[in-house]
Amino acid sequence: MFQQRLTETSGLARACLHDAIRNDGVLAEAMRYATAGGKGLRGFLVMESARLHGVSDQRSVRPAAAIEAVHAYSLVHDDLPCMDDDDLRRGLPTVHRKWDEATAVLVGDALQTLAFELLTHDAVGDARVELIATLARAAGQAGMVHGQALDIAAETAPIPLNIDEIIALQAGKTGALIRWSAEAGALMASADPAPMRDYATAMGLAFQIADDILDVEGNAQTVGKAVGKDADAGKATFVSLLGLNAAKTRAAELVEQACDALAPYGQDAETLREAARFVIQRDR
Amino acid sequence: MFQQRLTETSGLARACLHDAIRNDGVLAEAMRYATAGGKGLRGFLVMESARLHGVSDQRSVRPAAAIEAVHAYSLVHDDLPCMDDDDLRRGLPTVHRKWDEATAVLVGDALQTLAFELLTHDAVGDARVELIATLARAAGQAGMVHGQALDIAAETAPIPLNIDEIIALQAGKTGALIRWSAEAGALMASADPAPMRDYATAMGLAFQIADDILDVEGNAQTVGKAVGKDADAGKATFVSLLGLNAAKTRAAELVEQACDALAPYGQDAETLREAARFVIQRDR
Repeated sequence: MFQQRLTETSGLARACLHDAIRNDGVLAEAMRYATAGGKGLRGFLVMESARLHGVSDQRSVRPAAAIEAVHAYSLVHDDLPCMDDDDLRRGLPTVHRKWDEATAVLVGDALQTLAFELLTHDAVGDARVELIATLARAAGQAGMVHGQALDIAAETAPIPLNIDEIIALQAGKTGALIRWSAEAGALMASADPAPMRDYATAMGLAFQIADDILDVEGNAQTVGKAVGKDADAGKATFVSLLGLNAAKTRAAELVEQACDALAPYGQDAETLREAARFVIQRDR
Repeated sequence: MFQQRLTETSGLARACLHDAIRNDGVLAEAMRYATAGGKGLRGFLVMESARLHGVSDQRSVRPAAAIEAVHAYSLVHDDLPCMDDDDLRRGLPTVHRKWDEATAVLVGDALQTLAFELLTHDAVGDARVELIATLARAAGQAGMVHGQALDIAAETAPIPLNIDEIIALQAGKTGALIRWSAEAGALMASADPAPMRDYATAMGLAFQIADDILDVEGNAQTVGKAVGKDADAGKATFVSLLGLNAAKTRAAELVEQACDALAPYGQDAETLREAARFVIQRDR
């Protein structure tokens, strides 16, 4: 069920996103390139949480495309030489390697703008302003970008981060967009977003622990980006702080927590539970 | 009247913007730094066009702060080494010189996000979604960022741009935000934005011609940034294409056009007319 729905939603969200990229120049080409790959997990969370609350794919596809645009923008900027300096993303050259740094800066900028434009579409419905406001908070100075700033500060800090600091950093850097994705469907249906928030908070942390495990155990070709970078840089990660086995145990516990949070939805939420299990089983 | 209202609106917009910058870290500090200076012309256009349409400063101050945030974000990214590589902005070190490139990328990213968050505030009123949608179009792939991409492409093009291409480039790069600023007040009052659009289109072009003239005639210390860069780079500008005198004549004609476009508002629009005259008389 999950894999099928993931394929379906990522296809719909990507088509919607690419349809919204206009012009024929280098900028549009690089924007399409930057959003062509990836699992589409955030867009899936939007569309599946929407379906769970009785909101149609037609209404939820633009918020799904929007969150994928924000995610892609953050990766393009994160890969820049002045940030993580990565040459490979999703198995292909990063935008600044395929084009140049200026193009990568502009592609990220334009993708962020496009995300907000997508959320203004009539089909999104009455929750538009709330979705825009919550996405801005999740993506900005109090969310994702805040987490990235903490991450950069940590690189030059004299003492590696402790576990609480890593959790706070990741709650911003990757957690905020995952939470927004899961809550979006509830907001579109004017339902209580609390269960989806609890689900996403636990799942987001499990996702990041799994990422740290992949950085140690993963194969660069399968993962689609460089691995072993954190250990080489002496960076504190869940694996360096907890050890590999304890990190795996913690991730599995968080996935159980995520599944339990969906109890109010009963069997209807099974696809979302599968998604939570997937994040710690994936190999990329 | 104009100088007084410019001082007033830029103070209000900056206070609103700085109030919306939370946290105490480096990111917040650098966001405040990047938005501390500048003339505040775009925010003035928002608030004065709003006043002209009977919309209070209390309602228009957030859209004014939003456009100043977008303008500041574009300058921070534009100044990066991979873009224009500028060390000085508004007479002070650029963000990447005072901090580093990673901080400059994140500051620009967070300021763009903040702009959209500001527009979701209740006080902005019913036009919120339309203001967000039009700002996204003005700032993104079809507006400002499109103009910047054309500008980068022009730098490596074998043949310098001709006058029509320069006009198209500038209509995106600087014109789109100036048009949005002038139209915002009309949109907030559900009035016809056409006269404000005509005003801003002529004024935006005059503004850019004046910028090119300042790059030739201006004093770096007064202008607050490096001058003579375009000529040194062999870049086509309004001055290189028209000659200095014809460029001045053209700018003055455009200012007259801008003033004439405000005829439907009679004497009430005198402050906006003064603003148009100011853009070709300024020394920075």
